[in-house]
Amino acid sequence: MLDERNRDHFAMLRAKVRQIVEAKSFQRTIMAVIVGNAVTLGLETVPNLSDRTLSLLHTLDTIALTVFVVELLAKFYVYRLGFFRNAWNVFDLLVVGVALVPAAGGFSVLRALRVLRVLRLISGIESMRRVVATLLAAIPGAASIVGLLALVVYVSAVMATSLFGPKVPQHFGDLGQSLWTLFQTLTGEAWPDIADDVIAEYPMAWIFFLIFILISTFVVLNLFLAVIVSAMESVKDAEEAEMEAALEETEADIKAELALLRQEIRDLREQLLQPTASVGSGRDEPD
Amino acid sequence: MLDERNRDHFAMLRAKVRQIVEAKSFQRTIMAVIVGNAVTLGLETVPNLSDRTLSLLHTLDTIALTVFVVELLAKFYVYRLGFFRNAWNVFDLLVVGVALVPAAGGFSVLRALRVLRVLRLISGIESMRRVVATLLAAIPGAASIVGLLALVVYVSAVMATSLFGPKVPQHFGDLGQSLWTLFQTLTGEAWPDIADDVIAEYPMAWIFFLIFILISTFVVLNLFLAVIVSAMESVKDAEEAEMEAALEETEADIKAELALLRQEIRDLREQLLQPTASVGSGRDEPD
Amino acid sequence: MLDERNRDHFAMLRAKVRQIVEAKSFQRTIMAVIVGNAVTLGLETVPNLSDRTLSLLHTLDTIALTVFVVELLAKFYVYRLGFFRNAWNVFDLLVVGVALVPAAGGFSVLRALRVLRVLRLISGIESMRRVVATLLAAIPGAASIVGLLALVVYVSAVMATSLFGPKVPQHFGDLGQSLWTLFQTLTGEAWPDIADDVIAEYPMAWIFFLIFILISTFVVLNLFLAVIVSAMESVKDAEEAEMEAALEETEADIKAELALLRQEIRDLREQLLQPTASVGSGRDEPD
Amino acid sequence: MLDERNRDHFAMLRAKVRQIVEAKSFQRTIMAVIVGNAVTLGLETVPNLSDRTLSLLHTLDTIALTVFVVELLAKFYVYRLGFFRNAWNVFDLLVVGVALVPAAGGFSVLRALRVLRVLRLISGIESMRRVVATLLAAIPGAASIVGLLALVVYVSAVMATSLFGPKVPQHFGDLGQSLWTLFQTLTGEAWPDIADDVIAEYPMAWIFFLIFILISTFVVLNLFLAVIVSAMESVKDAEEAEMEAALEETEADIKAELALLRQEIRDLREQLLQPTASVGSGRDEPD
Repeated sequence: MLDERNRDHFAMLRAKVRQIVEAKSFQRTIMAVIVGNAVTLGLETVPNLSDRTLSLLHTLDTIALTVFVVELLAKFYVYRLGFFRNAWNVFDLLVVGVALVPAAGGFSVLRALRVLRVLRLISGIESMRRVVATLLAAIPGAASIVGLLALVVYVSAVMATSLFGPKVPQHFGDLGQSLWTLFQTLTGEAWPDIADDVIAEYPMAWIFFLIFILISTFVVLNLFLAVIVSAMESVKDAEEAEMEAALEETEADIKAELALLRQEIRDLREQLLQPTASVGSGRDEPD
Repeated sequence: MLDERNRDHFAMLRAKVRQIVEAKSFQRTIMAVIVGNAVTLGLETVPNLSDRTLSLLHTLDTIALTVFVVELLAKFYVYRLGFFRNAWNVFDLLVVGVALVPAAGGFSVLRALRVLRVLRLISGIESMRRVVATLLAAIPGAASIVGLLALVVYVSAVMATSLFGPKVPQHFGDLGQSLWTLFQTLTGEAWPDIADDVIAEYPMAWIFFLIFILISTFVVLNLFLAVIVSAMESVKDAEEAEMEAALEETEADIKAELALLRQEIRDLREQLLQPTASVGSGRDEPD
Repeated sequence: MLDERNRDHFAMLRAKVRQIVEAKSFQRTIMAVIVGNAVTLGLETVPNLSDRTLSLLHTLDTIALTVFVVELLAKFYVYRLGFFRNAWNVFDLLVVGVALVPAAGGFSVLRALRVLRVLRLISGIESMRRVVATLLAAIPGAASIVGLLALVVYVSAVMATSLFGPKVPQHFGDLGQSLWTLFQTLTGEAWPDIADDVIAEYPMAWIFFLIFILISTFVVLNLFLAVIVSAMESVKDAEEAEMEAALEETEADIKAELALLRQEIRDLREQLLQPTASVGSGRDEPD
Repeated sequence: MLDERNRDHFAMLRAKVRQIVEAKSFQRTIMAVIVGNAVTLGLETVPNLSDRTLSLLHTLDTIALTVFVVELLAKFYVYRLGFFRNAWNVFDLLVVGVALVPAAGGFSVLRALRVLRVLRLISGIESMRRVVATLLAAIPGAASIVGLLALVVYVSAVMATSLFGPKVPQHFGDLGQSLWTLFQTLTGEAWPDIADDVIAEYPMAWIFFLIFILISTFVVLNLFLAVIVSAMESVKDAEEAEMEAALEETEADIKAELALLRQEIRDLREQLLQPTASVGSGRDEPD
């Protein structure tokens, strides 16, 4: 009896918490805390702050963190395991959770990662969420080309390491170094300096750079193109759908007209045939 | 009585001024003054000019400024508060007004800003105005992605300041410095040098640069894409509208044909039923 | 009599020359001479050539030039003033004519310009001619945006010269220098070094660079966009035309069907009314 | 008799080998060997490996190579000359064959080229093959523009060599050097440094760079555009085909309706004309 009452009580509490958590004003408050936290985290990076200011900023940060933890706990209480079904909740959990990991050796890195919390603005603003969803949706279509690009870079890096590594170790000393150098080349940055260093030792190295730049540029261009074409196709599909709807409507309109026409002919026939019946076969009935 | 006469007089004067202000030749004259002023402002920057030349250029500049002020006063006299309803008038007022602000400390800056007047060419030439309007129209559609980009840069800058600030102050000394460095990286310029400086102190910093460059490039690419797709959609909408118009015309044509057909059937029916009436049911009546 | 004969003779000669000039094989020979000339002009740039080789190359160049001059004279003989109506002929005349200008002071420049002759490959190959025509066709549509870009660069250059000229003369010493520096910035190259030099003297100069880069990038992006959209619109127009043709065909087909139907009804009516006439109104007549 | 049996025996063997070669599991095994080989080839580039590790890696490489050779021999045994009809087989043969060429002078180059084998991943994965096919399909459409670009670069290089070669040999010393420098400029990289070096000697050289950058950027932009437009046209064609199919379907639907209508009218006519005959002219009979 008491158990049931308790259950009722908890169910009511849960419903109430849900109401709070899903209220516009609650979400707006959280957004405000995120923005405020973004500012305090930014201010913390100012060099040579007084101890008082620093401790104030830390207190504000702790308050913001507490608000986020309470918010997530409340959401978890309301949605239970359904909480994890929404990818944005998982995202929020991760960026907030970073600050709760006990800091040890990599202290400064974890401190630095706290600012990732500000990315919660994305999960909090509808239009931002949509933009990110659109970005992520573009990835699978481009996966094959990205894979091809990765393959080209890997093969080129292995080749460059064994070809140029011995005499130009500052750029192609080991595989990691070569991958980094070729990534720089891929962004179109600083490659002439690198090429000059290599060509000074291996005069034919220009062939490698020429081929690598032509192929990688060509693949990157096609990556862009694939994304544009896929975007165009979705626009096209929308257009097609609308045009087909318009066409179907036209067809329906004309068919309706035709149906009316047919009905008219049928009416005509009936009206003609009935009297005719009384003239023709209708004769039998009066008989 | 005299008051009324005065009012009439002023109304006539206003109409006359309006006629002048809206005349093609007046606008062309203003354009010519702007171009002339652009030349004198350019000539003023020539180093080591003689005092005579400088004072001549200053006189010409003052004349141009006077023309612009008189023009704006005339427009204000004609349109009254309606003057401010046209955004281009406000633009003209601002770029001309800059030269009228009493110059004190920031003398050279205000002198330099005088050249903004030349931008009045935009408000004076129809096709330029349209181009700028098109540019501005592209902004709202891209706002969410620009916001996302700004967020990514801010978060990265805070992170980089606390991570790399202590040992690489020349690039990431404070938040402003970091934002500037990441803006340079965003334009794809000089980032390998910056990365080299940082990696010399923090060997794992390549992870930061790799992720930042991949994400920001990806977001920028999508910014381009969003603008292209929105342009395509307006092209598509135009196409759809034209196709739907063509479809409607076709439908109307066919319906007209069908109406004729229906009329024909009705005529047939009338002609058939009337005589038939006298043959069929019409029989009853004479009976 | 002799005069007339002469005229006939010349007309026949002209027709014969025309036949030669317009023959495929003649055009192919000219192309071969151009390619050969491209090679000899390239070889001439090899440093430290022996005098014998040089004089051989010069002789070959003179032969090629003679061929081109004879070709152009022949074409002029055939087409007379119609020669100038084809823009490609004018182009050929200019790039060949450069070598005939008596070389004096700017000797090396004129010698260097001789290689422009190789561009005659463009006027000789149909697909190349089409590509260049397409390129030129893209210009008017982009003229307004290019004008806007030029205006932005000019205004920025004047402003930068008066703001930064005094202390950073190496980049913004005079208007020409500033225009060159901003052109470099526009190509996205080397701007961080320039900005560093300026910011060292004027700490607030980052505002200038930030605004200039954002605006110019935005305008350039829209330049691309305008070209893409105009290309899309021509594709769209082609699509629309084809779709409208298909729609019209469909309409024509359906109308033909409807016309047949109408004819059928008319036939029916005629067949019905004739006998009915003898039943209906036909009655009146016998009456 | 024995001969025939042998033939049967070989035919069966061939069928069996074909079954093996075309099995999914076989292809997956080969893919695994390629990936494994990619890893060992990457590990070989690690500097200062112990002799034991190196010999282990070499052994693994030899095993992978053996697997590839056996695979290709098996495929050749199965398909005979048909083997060469599939371009991917030829590709596999080339990248595997590189390792079998007896290494002499260019030892390190051939060793380095062994990693090209990893590119066999492309020929092994369906989606990769499709991407490469798409890339290659884009080439012919852009050939004319690439040709134009090459022509512009060649002409500019010859011109720059004779103009700037004497005093700026580090950038424009000979034709090869000039082509390389202009290729760098084309990628938008490091050109301000080169231009500065040249302008220091030839103050008017900015004209050359300005024109070269404007023209080459314009041509490259149009190269992109041509590829985008050709992609759009294929999208358009797909859309058109679908729309025309929809239109034809609509037409067929309406025509079916019209056929029904026509049938109705025919029925009406038949029914009318027969009884009417008994009403109209039939009258004469009873009379």
